[in-house]
Amino acid sequence: MSLDEVDTPALLIDLDALEENIRRVANAVHGTSVRVRPHAKTHKCPEIARRQIDAGAVGLCCQKVSEAEAMVAGGVQDVIVTNEVVDPRKLGRLVSLARRARIGVCCDDPAAVDILEGAAAAGGVTLRVLVELEVGGNRCGVRPGADAVALAELIDAKPHLSFVGLQAYNGPAQHLKTIGERRASTAEAVENVKQTLEQLARAGLGCETVGGAGTGTFRLEASSGIFNELQVGSYVFMDADYARIGGEDEGPFSDFDHSLFVLTAVMSVAAQDWAVCDAGTKSVLLDRGMPIVVDRPDLAYVAGGGDEHGKLMLGAGAGPKLGDRLRLIPPHCDPTVNLHDWFVCYRGHTVEDVWPIAARGGMF
Amino acid sequence: MSLDEVDTPALLIDLDALEENIRRVANAVHGTSVRVRPHAKTHKCPEIARRQIDAGAVGLCCQKVSEAEAMVAGGVQDVIVTNEVVDPRKLGRLVSLARRARIGVCCDDPAAVDILEGAAAAGGVTLRVLVELEVGGNRCGVRPGADAVALAELIDAKPHLSFVGLQAYNGPAQHLKTIGERRASTAEAVENVKQTLEQLARAGLGCETVGGAGTGTFRLEASSGIFNELQVGSYVFMDADYARIGGEDEGPFSDFDHSLFVLTAVMSVAAQDWAVCDAGTKSVLLDRGMPIVVDRPDLAYVAGGGDEHGKLMLGAGAGPKLGDRLRLIPPHCDPTVNLHDWFVCYRGHTVEDVWPIAARGGMF
Repeated sequence: MSLDEVDTPALLIDLDALEENIRRVANAVHGTSVRVRPHAKTHKCPEIARRQIDAGAVGLCCQKVSEAEAMVAGGVQDVIVTNEVVDPRKLGRLVSLARRARIGVCCDDPAAVDILEGAAAAGGVTLRVLVELEVGGNRCGVRPGADAVALAELIDAKPHLSFVGLQAYNGPAQHLKTIGERRASTAEAVENVKQTLEQLARAGLGCETVGGAGTGTFRLEASSGIFNELQVGSYVFMDADYARIGGEDEGPFSDFDHSLFVLTAVMSVAAQDWAVCDAGTKSVLLDRGMPIVVDRPDLAYVAGGGDEHGKLMLGAGAGPKLGDRLRLIPPHCDPTVNLHDWFVCYRGHTVEDVWPIAARGGMF
Repeated sequence: MSLDEVDTPALLIDLDALEENIRRVANAVHGTSVRVRPHAKTHKCPEIARRQIDAGAVGLCCQKVSEAEAMVAGGVQDVIVTNEVVDPRKLGRLVSLARRARIGVCCDDPAAVDILEGAAAAGGVTLRVLVELEVGGNRCGVRPGADAVALAELIDAKPHLSFVGLQAYNGPAQHLKTIGERRASTAEAVENVKQTLEQLARAGLGCETVGGAGTGTFRLEASSGIFNELQVGSYVFMDADYARIGGEDEGPFSDFDHSLFVLTAVMSVAAQDWAVCDAGTKSVLLDRGMPIVVDRPDLAYVAGGGDEHGKLMLGAGAGPKLGDRLRLIPPHCDPTVNLHDWFVCYRGHTVEDVWPIAARGGMF
């Protein structure tokens, strides 16, 4: 089947670019003790997880129990839920997964330690628990230092919990515009983690795992000497927002190639100044700017379309014709993937496969 | 089953409020010649469509062929696709629907008339076609007046197309902050439609249907003497954005009750100033401001959470506890519904039903 036969709007993966991106992260840590544990929240797809593991990843991260269920069902044997789970029903599902795979989960609250212990004991399993540090994300996590050590000691004392390390993801740092800003923000997080590790060591607690990092900063965490697991997600797809940040050499960030596209078709050319395509906010999320239209410098995707309409302002050139097919680079991969039910995977101009987005729309 | 047992995040419908909203629109046109044709893009759910028809709606609007397929499969016998369809595969599906139901579609291009005629002829059906006017939406549609009349004449001359009227939806007017602004914008659209109708009449073309209007302006179109079909959508759910516009009496717009909620649970209270719940941008779309937290004046949902995290700033009061369950009023119903697979429908505190969001995630 040719790409020309794919109905629109559709979510496409360029397999050559995807595979190249997976190789590049594997190469970046080759010969070091730093492990790759890619984040499944980006793709929600066991087919991609398996390719990441084949390239050397030690397991996957998930953000929700339902994602972990989809990954384990798809053959992933080692999952960390990089998030707090405190609901008894959700913990029941997590404990059930822990009978079939190696499962870790995060904690940022003494009250949650008792809840986790209760669920693990009831299920007859040992849950692996990481203490989440607040290192710049300003959402979940305890303060580095004494609070984190006290929580780790509480966890360590429970018979059905095993303290395995620290979760220290600095989300906002990923998208800072210059490498200098990303370096400064990451250095601060690294210092906080380092001090916490020293205090943990004094308390007699070792850390098997120190996890964090994202696509924008992973080389910094990798060379920190402190982090040993990289939780990169967006790198497999490389969205338009990452393409707008700066790279090492003052040029654009170009560590990865774009592999994810929304295929759309032009449905109206009635206006003088704009055209309309069939990909609106129900097909591509616009919370981080506008998509890039591939190979069409005459067209700029702009705000003002709608849920089912994409608005394309016309620049110099012939302009689009009714039915023209365009590829859009999404501004933000993760929530765009979450809008679709499957990836249409192609190489060159030929559709090779269709992969279900198995964990799409799941509960927490 | 009690609401307390519903896993989070989940999309809830308060059935009493939904039914009341459906009654209110029916009452608003009672005894007039104005018809109600609610828009299915809001709910994507045949169960709701059937309740709207039971209350007097003449049929449904859809924005995509896949929505029309879901509605016809769910028993709806009369659908207008309020959008341009020019792709031969999509038109093949539409023609196939036209063998089983009354199907209308919009057109804004002479080239599209030939495409529509070709598809209808190949399928051996007559397609009902409306000329879409650009009356303020700034996306699809021809200019009112001569262009519209020329297009209507082209359609009328085709053996397998039937010109049935005008589609004139003024989207941006719906959300204008004051009733005065909405009145002025609607009056301009009404005047453009009126002049087009007069020119059509001089050309010997009648209009069975003049459709448009939304939740923010439907009373204006209803009393215009020009529009005879109201395409209201959001009124069934009433989102937080509509709650922020002004009503008739200088108070807030209160024509409808909120019936749609995202149920979420608190998963982290580790920070001093904020808490975190499990509904982020993968559960509630934030393109029109922030959700309202029901009955919790101590909590404000703010930006900065993330795809799977909702951030709640703490105000005066005790603050939330781990596991607290909250109802959020979505800022924008339509794309929030599109994130979920089913509605959990309740009355009082009891779950009565679960309705699949049948047309979620469909192609165009």
